[in-house]
Amino acid sequence: MDRWRKVTLLGVGLLGGSLGLALKQRKLAARVEGFVRRQASVDECQKLGVVDAAHLDLAKAVEGADLIIFCTPLAQMHEIAQRLPQEVRQRAFVTDVGSVKGSVVQELEPLFPNFVGSHPMAGSEKTGPAAATAELFHDAVCVITPTPRSNPKAVERMEELWRSVGGMTRRLSPELHDELVSRSSHLPHVLAAQLVNYVLGPTRSKDQALLCANGFRDTTRIASGLPEMWRDIALSNRENVIRELAGFIDHLEALRTALEKGDSQAIDQFFTEAKKRRDAWQGQRGSSPE
Amino acid sequence: MDRWRKVTLLGVGLLGGSLGLALKQRKLAARVEGFVRRQASVDECQKLGVVDAAHLDLAKAVEGADLIIFCTPLAQMHEIAQRLPQEVRQRAFVTDVGSVKGSVVQELEPLFPNFVGSHPMAGSEKTGPAAATAELFHDAVCVITPTPRSNPKAVERMEELWRSVGGMTRRLSPELHDELVSRSSHLPHVLAAQLVNYVLGPTRSKDQALLCANGFRDTTRIASGLPEMWRDIALSNRENVIRELAGFIDHLEALRTALEKGDSQAIDQFFTEAKKRRDAWQGQRGSSPE
Repeated sequence: MDRWRKVTLLGVGLLGGSLGLALKQRKLAARVEGFVRRQASVDECQKLGVVDAAHLDLAKAVEGADLIIFCTPLAQMHEIAQRLPQEVRQRAFVTDVGSVKGSVVQELEPLFPNFVGSHPMAGSEKTGPAAATAELFHDAVCVITPTPRSNPKAVERMEELWRSVGGMTRRLSPELHDELVSRSSHLPHVLAAQLVNYVLGPTRSKDQALLCANGFRDTTRIASGLPEMWRDIALSNRENVIRELAGFIDHLEALRTALEKGDSQAIDQFFTEAKKRRDAWQGQRGSSPE
Repeated sequence: MDRWRKVTLLGVGLLGGSLGLALKQRKLAARVEGFVRRQASVDECQKLGVVDAAHLDLAKAVEGADLIIFCTPLAQMHEIAQRLPQEVRQRAFVTDVGSVKGSVVQELEPLFPNFVGSHPMAGSEKTGPAAATAELFHDAVCVITPTPRSNPKAVERMEELWRSVGGMTRRLSPELHDELVSRSSHLPHVLAAQLVNYVLGPTRSKDQALLCANGFRDTTRIASGLPEMWRDIALSNRENVIRELAGFIDHLEALRTALEKGDSQAIDQFFTEAKKRRDAWQGQRGSSPE
């Protein structure tokens, strides 16, 4: 793969910082620079060494970049994109790491001739560049979402990018991506957060928290993620999330009915199927998904 | 604490095996023996060294025991209890490790003058004595559920037992225990299993499984637990689980409405509260809960 001359990360948090580390450690770019919003972030990025330089000045950050990666919250991407110099927009390859693709692709694709959306499915409830690691993308599924308007060369280069940092790539349309992640990622996040709010609500006794053990801990881990990020995701992928929430509630109602009837065969099948399907999924994960 | 002369574990799986290891390593009992159902289990227990001896013969297993601990699935406890020799029933201290207490206490208390129910909140989706570890109860909340009929001496000895293997004890009535765990443990299990069945159902594409990442993995971890165990728990604690499921569905419906309205303030508050409450709960956990 051709080495990048200069990669600019717009936003340097967990994902941006991890990309910076991976690109630098694997010597995939001559230079990695970052755009951040606050002086404290400039200092932190430089202290951590996740980029070669961090800037508050957007024009300086993207100057001479041949690859620009949007790593900001979803709601900020369009505004930043519009502020990029025309010359940079025309020349650079551009992608983003947003968790929702339909709205992002719609906003960014018209602004860049070499844009392709990405979604590296790597993350953590930990946030910020201090949690960054060069290994974050190792064996992570990285979805690329080309459209009929995408430049084939850009699609190829973005695929190479994610493979070069250890990811396993898969091409999906933005629409199919958003449908699939609304079930596999956004629904679990909503359930985890709702579970915390419901079980640890303000009216509960102290003993309620005491009786939350490791099962509760793991089931709700992702509820400790960044609230603003998840608000943006839920709203950006609203139609899919609403539909999946409705479908899930229907299934819960069916289970409640089985419990009300004391239907032990149905309850047994419910837990047996769940274990079987989850264990099968876990078994597949070791192997390459392509 | 007085050392036990002989502890008998009725059922030697993850919990029984871990108790055996903890009692032996900490020299809390002169002898630890187990009752199991199959010859293969006798061989496995002895090979693993989780008990000093394992028996298929119930009378032999409990002969001379001054402490008997029911570690079988909930549905098997009553039948085994009735088969114990009258002389052993009268003399030994007796407890169980069942995840539901109301039904168990109702069944076992009349049969043993020195019975007190317990629920060590330690576990794993791993099962069987091969997964046992002497450290399983370290810092785990161990609930003791005395009733007005309990022998105070037995309550005290059972409290000592759980502390001696590293647990932190809390006394609760069986009814309050069952209400609290229906929210903190049984509801999360039902949601995790339903999430697997919903997301990885037979009509989904291969890409659906591919797009399940670490968030899905953690949220559904407990769905890999023993189906028979969770069937028994859901049915034994049916009324509480049905009520909590209904309450949770109401909350999900409210969230769906907020999403339908595009109420970004409500969505923001939902994720913000969840993070705040979960982080606060995690923060409390290090310290002693008493």
